[in-house]
Amino acid sequence: MDKILRIDMGAEGGPKAVEEPLGAYEGLGGRAMTSAIVSNEVPPLCHPLGADNKLVIAPGILSGTTAAMSGRISVGCKSPLTGGIKEANAGGQAAQVLARLGYAAVVLEGKPRDDTLYKIFIDAGGVKISEANDLKMLGNYDTVEKIKEQHGEKVACLSIGPAGEMKMSAASVACTDMEMRPTRHAGRGGVGAVMGSKGVKVIVLDDSGMKMRQPKDPEKFKAATKEFVEGLRKNPTTGEGLPAYGTNVLTNVINEAGGYPTFNFRTGRFDGASKISGETQAETETARGGLATHGCHRGCVIRCSGIFNDKDGNYLTKQPEYETVWSHGGNCGIDDLDSIALMDRLDDDFGLDTIEMGATIGVAMEAGLAKFGDAEAAINLVKEVGKGTPLGRILGNGAAVTGKVFGVERVPVVKGQSMPAYDPRAVQGIGVTYATTTMGADHTAGYAVASNIMGVGGSVDPLKPQGQVELSRNLQIATAAIDASGMCLFIAFAILDQPETFQALMDIFGGFLGKDFTADDFTALGKSVLEKERAFNKAAGLTAADDRLPDYFKKEALPPHNVTFQVPDEELDQVFNW
Amino acid sequence: MDKILRIDMGAEGGPKAVEEPLGAYEGLGGRAMTSAIVSNEVPPLCHPLGADNKLVIAPGILSGTTAAMSGRISVGCKSPLTGGIKEANAGGQAAQVLARLGYAAVVLEGKPRDDTLYKIFIDAGGVKISEANDLKMLGNYDTVEKIKEQHGEKVACLSIGPAGEMKMSAASVACTDMEMRPTRHAGRGGVGAVMGSKGVKVIVLDDSGMKMRQPKDPEKFKAATKEFVEGLRKNPTTGEGLPAYGTNVLTNVINEAGGYPTFNFRTGRFDGASKISGETQAETETARGGLATHGCHRGCVIRCSGIFNDKDGNYLTKQPEYETVWSHGGNCGIDDLDSIALMDRLDDDFGLDTIEMGATIGVAMEAGLAKFGDAEAAINLVKEVGKGTPLGRILGNGAAVTGKVFGVERVPVVKGQSMPAYDPRAVQGIGVTYATTTMGADHTAGYAVASNIMGVGGSVDPLKPQGQVELSRNLQIATAAIDASGMCLFIAFAILDQPETFQALMDIFGGFLGKDFTADDFTALGKSVLEKERAFNKAAGLTAADDRLPDYFKKEALPPHNVTFQVPDEELDQVFNW
Repeated sequence: MDKILRIDMGAEGGPKAVEEPLGAYEGLGGRAMTSAIVSNEVPPLCHPLGADNKLVIAPGILSGTTAAMSGRISVGCKSPLTGGIKEANAGGQAAQVLARLGYAAVVLEGKPRDDTLYKIFIDAGGVKISEANDLKMLGNYDTVEKIKEQHGEKVACLSIGPAGEMKMSAASVACTDMEMRPTRHAGRGGVGAVMGSKGVKVIVLDDSGMKMRQPKDPEKFKAATKEFVEGLRKNPTTGEGLPAYGTNVLTNVINEAGGYPTFNFRTGRFDGASKISGETQAETETARGGLATHGCHRGCVIRCSGIFNDKDGNYLTKQPEYETVWSHGGNCGIDDLDSIALMDRLDDDFGLDTIEMGATIGVAMEAGLAKFGDAEAAINLVKEVGKGTPLGRILGNGAAVTGKVFGVERVPVVKGQSMPAYDPRAVQGIGVTYATTTMGADHTAGYAVASNIMGVGGSVDPLKPQGQVELSRNLQIATAAIDASGMCLFIAFAILDQPETFQALMDIFGGFLGKDFTADDFTALGKSVLEKERAFNKAAGLTAADDRLPDYFKKEALPPHNVTFQVPDEELDQVFNW
Repeated sequence: MDKILRIDMGAEGGPKAVEEPLGAYEGLGGRAMTSAIVSNEVPPLCHPLGADNKLVIAPGILSGTTAAMSGRISVGCKSPLTGGIKEANAGGQAAQVLARLGYAAVVLEGKPRDDTLYKIFIDAGGVKISEANDLKMLGNYDTVEKIKEQHGEKVACLSIGPAGEMKMSAASVACTDMEMRPTRHAGRGGVGAVMGSKGVKVIVLDDSGMKMRQPKDPEKFKAATKEFVEGLRKNPTTGEGLPAYGTNVLTNVINEAGGYPTFNFRTGRFDGASKISGETQAETETARGGLATHGCHRGCVIRCSGIFNDKDGNYLTKQPEYETVWSHGGNCGIDDLDSIALMDRLDDDFGLDTIEMGATIGVAMEAGLAKFGDAEAAINLVKEVGKGTPLGRILGNGAAVTGKVFGVERVPVVKGQSMPAYDPRAVQGIGVTYATTTMGADHTAGYAVASNIMGVGGSVDPLKPQGQVELSRNLQIATAAIDASGMCLFIAFAILDQPETFQALMDIFGGFLGKDFTADDFTALGKSVLEKERAFNKAAGLTAADDRLPDYFKKEALPPHNVTFQVPDEELDQVFNW
């Protein structure tokens, strides 16, 4: 990872690739890399779909090594959804492969001169950019099939579906998994629309002949990795809950806690929860010959994913995540796993953020376009998006646009991005994260659910405002550092509660870099990322007024606890005051 | 005008009206009143369509007197289009009638408990609020016909069409003219959507038995009014140009100056301009038995309006304004007056801002939904809005939403509101106003075109950045004061260049109030309005980043002068530094 690949998609005579040394970006990776390049190089007031925006794709600092869990890839840009800076990250194979190819970042720049669609192929021999109009408006699944025909099954793909080509603000960038299926998505904030605006359909990565990245202190690195993996295995969440039931283990947990947003955030409990829970899902998967335990990339030891087959036992989609099951499920009053899995498949194929899409359908239901609980209608709405009808264009641009177009007041967004699967009234810590993160409403940016609900990393009463700001602040800092490392965020469950596992992570860093790496270094890394992001957002015109939940969360009490969001504005404004 | 009428549309048991003394709002009118109430009482971060927003309807300080030109009514709220404060004003009969009824403001508050639609009737006897579901989804023309049946032809109406009921951000509030046609619109910023969100279809005003408001110093007032009218009559613009050709006299002028935005702001000159000019329009109107010179309210001495009949000599619409002819005409590459007049009629009937609609169709054409120049396609797009199809919902929410939904980069908006009929590159002073006014892109907020193009109020080179900030600042201050007075903005042509006419206006104020009223008082009035508005917008989250033109105006040179917008950001930030 000693170079950056820049591709000017607007160059005279066609796209032009240039390799550069790292320079000022030396030592960065993942979110630290994407946010550094975006904040340094992208004019904050530029149009997100214009020539001045850049799409930055970066493996984590530890990606491409033998460190377990280091397979996350970051995709950054100015977001067409939020108008602020964006980093969306994903699992799958791309991070490891790109890192082994030696690229710390691929940067798509400029604006195409016509509507030609391109494929970018990168291997040990360098970069080839070719016209790929035959892939136009193909879904991600068909796109990857075509790539298999051309390049075999050992490559990794980053691709967009029709949603990205149509520059929809809910469009994702899909990454292929171990089976070369486009199931892992850098979903949030419309990164797929920016890739579409650059005229790039797919980036194909082939690391044939390349080796693992080598640590500077191999012994320290190896010992730390071993300790780290042991820590993950012995932790009840990463060692048992997630492998057994996947992220959807949370449906029953959050529903029981009264924080499961149901009927577009009207209540905190869903009668049909048990029918779509992780337990039911795992049972269904196993019964149909799918898999309830499966990794999304090589090197994963948690293996929280799975394979969801249809009733006939044929592959339908990967195991839908908790947030997907919620967004298309309880949030829309839908309690049918097959319908939810079909929407997951459609979202993955069209290249759409499942959270944004489900929240959008909830808003559409609130607008009267379909009835809560009507799974068939919900599926048809997702299909509209793929077709790009006017209605589909509205929905594909997310909940905020849909609310605006249909005159709906109850739209659960912050900075234009829809809230995920935790009601901020019943889980006030996550409300602080939703409100203040640079990313727009995003649970992964500071997962206060851990301490609010699961007692991980301490325990903070979810229904009271006290302690939430400090909790969210600390988690946002740690998360930014993890997102820079290329590590899967789920390691947090283990490192928050097991000092020796946290230390093992520091030693993985230290072993890799060949120098001491302390908790202070880790914190400093996280803070530096957040500071760059905040500065970008400020220059883009975002203010404290954007660090707020929609008004109605402060007024409308959520059953069953009948609570409103209580954290005062003045406290929200202290999250980044460290 | 010694009382405020507040109607709580969300009161238990149905809407409830209360009359209040003026209190802190004593002495205010028009925009000074609407912006004072909105900035005092509306939480800046509330949802524009929610319970906390208020729709404030206020006649000007001088409305209802015998002062010529004092018939403007202000409609204010938090804007669903811009997210900031909004004052949209209109001519027609409403201001005079409301003022004579003694109301300095009517304030619609709260949120209806169901979807009942209401009619509010106000006369000397008080207020009656009644269910009006029979008017649901009627156009403004049909609505007014129904009101005529119920209340005769001597009342004034403020109403919304289907666009307002559908809470579209381009929805206007229509005011009836002297012929009781709904042709004068408080158009900009979605004030009609806010009226729709309050469940009010129409406000009917009957001033039977009420008298003109009396000045405290009748002799001074009468003499000043006479002098003022003489000043308007002798001024070439207000005495000749506007009466003869209406505002559309500008088509040839702005086209000749190379500042006529054509094909969605691609060029500054339109080949078909002469076919849709004010001169051609006046000729057409006269030939078809319409009127080329006509007032929009009693007491108007400029009479810049007219009556546009169709080819068979039947009334089609009032004389379309310059900005309407531009937006649906040259901006869309359309050079057919009949098509433009039909769109004007449709806009008025559906209750839509003609500027926003035309600009939106330009963006839709840029997105490929119709070809530039295709009048039939443009008409069909407007009809979609009236029908409320998904496509119509998109378009009815304006250019910014349309651009976002269809992934278009070239969207000529500031603060989400579309630019009017003057390209800011070729008329840089108006560019400063577009960028910085509290209202979102709005020519009326500081009409620098006067000095840039017409040599009125001094002369500032339109193609250079020098002097534009000072010009726009002074005009924005004066405009805010005029908008408070209830005077038609067109008096500015006379008062800017004729000191005696300016003094006459001060003496009208002084005579009415029974005290000295100086140029300093006038300036202080304007500044106080702007300061309130800026403070509201700041609290609503708008920053210097929102006081900018879209990026491409700084990069893409406009033919024929091949100029970009040159006023530096730092200078823009000095507009409100007085």
